[in-house]
Amino acid sequence: MAPMIPGNKYKRYTPLDLPDRSWPSKVPQSSPIWTSVDLRDGNQALINPMSGEQKLKFYQKLVDVGFKEIEVAFPSASDTDFGFVRHIIENGMVPDDVFLQVLTPAREELIHRTFESIRGAKNVILHMYNASSPLFRNVVFGNSKEQTIELAVRHTRIVRQLVDHYSKPENGGTNFKYEYSPETFTQTEMDFAVELCEAVREAWGKASADNRIIFNLPATVEIGPPNHYADQIEYFCRHISRREEIIVSLHPHNDRGCAVAATELGLLAGGDRVEGCLFGNGERTGNVDIVTLALNLFCQGIQPGELDLSDLESVVEVVSGCNDIAVHPRHPYAGDLVFTAFSGSHQDAIKKGFAAQAKRNAEGDPTWEIPYLPIDPADLGCTYEAVIRVNSQSGKGGVAYLVAQSLGLDLPRRMQVAFYQVVQEVADRTGKEMTSDDITRIFNQTYHLASLQGKNEARYQLKSFSLSDDNESSAAADDDVMEGAQTPRHRRFTGKVSRDGQVHDVSGRGNGALSAFLDAIESAFGIKANVREYSEHAITKPGSQAIGGPQQQQQQRSGNHSKAQAASYVELISADEVQEVGSKKAVGFWGVGIDVDITAAGLKAVLSSLSNIEQPAKIVNQAVEAAEAA
Amino acid sequence: MAPMIPGNKYKRYTPLDLPDRSWPSKVPQSSPIWTSVDLRDGNQALINPMSGEQKLKFYQKLVDVGFKEIEVAFPSASDTDFGFVRHIIENGMVPDDVFLQVLTPAREELIHRTFESIRGAKNVILHMYNASSPLFRNVVFGNSKEQTIELAVRHTRIVRQLVDHYSKPENGGTNFKYEYSPETFTQTEMDFAVELCEAVREAWGKASADNRIIFNLPATVEIGPPNHYADQIEYFCRHISRREEIIVSLHPHNDRGCAVAATELGLLAGGDRVEGCLFGNGERTGNVDIVTLALNLFCQGIQPGELDLSDLESVVEVVSGCNDIAVHPRHPYAGDLVFTAFSGSHQDAIKKGFAAQAKRNAEGDPTWEIPYLPIDPADLGCTYEAVIRVNSQSGKGGVAYLVAQSLGLDLPRRMQVAFYQVVQEVADRTGKEMTSDDITRIFNQTYHLASLQGKNEARYQLKSFSLSDDNESSAAADDDVMEGAQTPRHRRFTGKVSRDGQVHDVSGRGNGALSAFLDAIESAFGIKANVREYSEHAITKPGSQAIGGPQQQQQQRSGNHSKAQAASYVELISADEVQEVGSKKAVGFWGVGIDVDITAAGLKAVLSSLSNIEQPAKIVNQAVEAAEAA
Repeated sequence: MAPMIPGNKYKRYTPLDLPDRSWPSKVPQSSPIWTSVDLRDGNQALINPMSGEQKLKFYQKLVDVGFKEIEVAFPSASDTDFGFVRHIIENGMVPDDVFLQVLTPAREELIHRTFESIRGAKNVILHMYNASSPLFRNVVFGNSKEQTIELAVRHTRIVRQLVDHYSKPENGGTNFKYEYSPETFTQTEMDFAVELCEAVREAWGKASADNRIIFNLPATVEIGPPNHYADQIEYFCRHISRREEIIVSLHPHNDRGCAVAATELGLLAGGDRVEGCLFGNGERTGNVDIVTLALNLFCQGIQPGELDLSDLESVVEVVSGCNDIAVHPRHPYAGDLVFTAFSGSHQDAIKKGFAAQAKRNAEGDPTWEIPYLPIDPADLGCTYEAVIRVNSQSGKGGVAYLVAQSLGLDLPRRMQVAFYQVVQEVADRTGKEMTSDDITRIFNQTYHLASLQGKNEARYQLKSFSLSDDNESSAAADDDVMEGAQTPRHRRFTGKVSRDGQVHDVSGRGNGALSAFLDAIESAFGIKANVREYSEHAITKPGSQAIGGPQQQQQQRSGNHSKAQAASYVELISADEVQEVGSKKAVGFWGVGIDVDITAAGLKAVLSSLSNIEQPAKIVNQAVEAAEAA
Repeated sequence: MAPMIPGNKYKRYTPLDLPDRSWPSKVPQSSPIWTSVDLRDGNQALINPMSGEQKLKFYQKLVDVGFKEIEVAFPSASDTDFGFVRHIIENGMVPDDVFLQVLTPAREELIHRTFESIRGAKNVILHMYNASSPLFRNVVFGNSKEQTIELAVRHTRIVRQLVDHYSKPENGGTNFKYEYSPETFTQTEMDFAVELCEAVREAWGKASADNRIIFNLPATVEIGPPNHYADQIEYFCRHISRREEIIVSLHPHNDRGCAVAATELGLLAGGDRVEGCLFGNGERTGNVDIVTLALNLFCQGIQPGELDLSDLESVVEVVSGCNDIAVHPRHPYAGDLVFTAFSGSHQDAIKKGFAAQAKRNAEGDPTWEIPYLPIDPADLGCTYEAVIRVNSQSGKGGVAYLVAQSLGLDLPRRMQVAFYQVVQEVADRTGKEMTSDDITRIFNQTYHLASLQGKNEARYQLKSFSLSDDNESSAAADDDVMEGAQTPRHRRFTGKVSRDGQVHDVSGRGNGALSAFLDAIESAFGIKANVREYSEHAITKPGSQAIGGPQQQQQQRSGNHSKAQAASYVELISADEVQEVGSKKAVGFWGVGIDVDITAAGLKAVLSSLSNIEQPAKIVNQAVEAAEAA
């Protein structure tokens, strides 16, 4: 392979000399006017243009989403387009506050045909274009600058006559706006673009501050960087006369992947209005994506005009269905992977961010500020479920988050590490993304929580038990489960524990329930183990955190709960390592127990751990098998 | 539906006060250093991270494409990553001019592990990051500014020690660069970012103009518009001391859909280097797409460094295969639809553009300037076949272009209109894209060119014929086919013509071959028709225009051809309309005839047209049926 050498084949764009440009110091303050050109520019760029039914469905969605200007067709280009415009007008499908926009070239018979298509509509934007750039003037049409102006003026006068005609009540009484596009603006000499638009405005003769003429300035092909487009817009806005009688409209395409940026900078430079398509459909690389533009504004705290994208999934569904083009999984805001975090450090940060957010919100501060999540997924109708996903690159934070989400369990920090290692090994060995379901299944298997949904029964199971004072002078409480109480007390454990399905009577003594139980285990099975860490909490039902995420969960947890279950976590160290309890290097085995009785939960946690001390490798092997089968 | 009102939930970005910013007046002059982070940032964002085999395949492609800096892993994060680094080093898979980059957090044990992974590599960029932004400092790590600096400095010193160690010949003799990322730069106070980097540079102590330290400035989450990122980069470049000892590296993500723009403006603002992924893979909405950046430069006549993307399809194949994420059909440069033009006016312009291009090139001017095609598809290894595609929104220009491409026929302009109407009706009625094959089939059916590949036999067929002088005083040439010769001459036609399979002897007279033939037709079948337009040309074999398109075809046509066939086009008007011949409104019927003998070609064209005069509706119906069956 050798480097690509362009030689002198490609010309650079010619920068404007605009040292006093003002747009770089501006910040967005408000929403532009949004105009969807999905049904025209978008539709004509499809491998299979929409059927009538699809076009109607798409049109209805555009209305529902809140567009007030919709370019619905190029009526003179095909009978399908003409018929579509008639259909929505004649069937009363156009709300009173929506302008239908129709495109026509500057040709007399096509302009007439275009007007025929909109007869009877309440509000119409008549959009005419002709070629203005040297490439088009010279190569495609063979017109001089003068001929180009004459052509635009002559046909604008025809438009004006027909507007006057169709405005009369007896001819439909339509309310018109006129839009003119010098095509392609960005490749036209800037002074000529201004001159052309001045001539068109003069020929139109109806522009006023109350009914502004729309000058649409297309980057039909994106041929320079976005700052260049902004310079061109600022130049145009400065040089065109009677600026207050004009709506400056932007119509960027995405050939250099910068359409969104060009639009944003163009708006800072003076643009009032944006023509684009949902999710960036349109010729070649697409028109600018209005969804991204609108949500970029929203994330800056600016209302995106009349648009409502709070049910983004339904918009994706209609648009991708009618266009027969999927939205890319990494498409801003709308892609399937946009709210995911696979990386462990990201997941950990998000988890902490949610906790801080909950605190802020509780203090009345609504500010959204979560690492890696520039927008609240809930504002787009998404749940938090998709936010954290786990693969072999993920960390303990994400895994713990998913366990908390799906099972309502808050794992102790060191247990997070231990369980994460299991998940990571399963992910490494299977090469698969671990879904929330996978994590849950692995958790249940690893800790033998058959009662939830796992199928890996614990080797040891608690069948029945009783705890009594072994020392009558002490009135110890049943729930004294911690080692090392200050006053030595004695508890006596008696019960039945099964091992590999066979039930054993066991009994033992200790200064608490757990130590008495461990004593009993040692007597019965010869296993000597000590507790290194123990904790417990009440469980709330998971699954109701669609809005508010961990925050809401926390609020629920602090409320009243009848029949709440308890979760207990215990880390045991086997006798061989007991001398190393204080050392970080001793390998501990975690167990989990769940029961309405907190004592029983603790005892179950011990048995869960014990089952793992004896067969640590088996856990992972089973989890890998299950993941591969899933 | 109601508008989305953000209220005070979202904070705006804080613009920098940089009225004398210089980047908006700059234009790109050269390529930055390209660093692929596909195998790290990209890989960790995949639903299913790459297998070892996929990672090797991807790595090899990155090397082949010409990357000299490749972030290959996060070795301390997983055994898979660690093992991958060892594998490519131990198997000699790293070219001498390629730097392996490895990422590590600022934690001592992880830094040690990272160095272990690269032992023996020739060139390594050791890339360390720690959290610098207030959100991370406060919420995630609970560190003050001072603690953040102390942490970065302390771990940079550890890196320095290990670099000194592993630089020694006996420890691998690796050549190191050091890269430091304040994470996330864009959300960090700018003065603090500079302060932090100054401290890191001091602790590193090895930066020089010959071995510059890399300060990587990530927009880990894109939270402001691209001009804001450029301002931040310019601020950093102005305020950091000893700028000449620093490589300023950009690492943008795409949350607002502006990563490419942010990078381009950031490079104008002083960036030297770009970290990104091919086709914009990476966390959430992806890292910046290096392919788009490189080809944007190329289209400006700037060599994109060492990169070679001239076989873009193979790059798409490897990347989308290993990532298991498709490249979107509208992705700049690489998407399936990027070089297509469905719209008629676009197709017409492209056709004319190619003609002008051929003329320019013949005059020694290599400038690429084709409407709607900012880059020559051939520079990316694409053929022109995909450029023009036809659907119901397409015009005659595109259809004619495809006929010329596939059959070598240059249709007369008015015939283009006639045939286009047929294609448009088929497209409208079937709702399908018309492929090049569809167009060819419809053409052959419409004009009964069974000899090519269509299956619709003409109703009338020429079996044999002879032409002789009917007037011995005149020495008329056989190929005098035009009506209205100045001196009246007479030709006599005798021959056999079949209608619906039944052969008829026919004879007639006229002042040329065609008129004698039409006279014979009228006598035999009672059909009176007149010629309105006639033309012919020699046919060249189509299909060899992969490079150069119409231009090359034209050159071939003007050269020598043995056994060239002739194509004749005739438009007949039936007698009922003959009085209207001068009027545009008379409906003409076109026919096409192809033969090595130009006279026979003309006669066949007449019969092709005659078959259509008698059954115009049938043509379209058959074409629709065939298209639906296809």
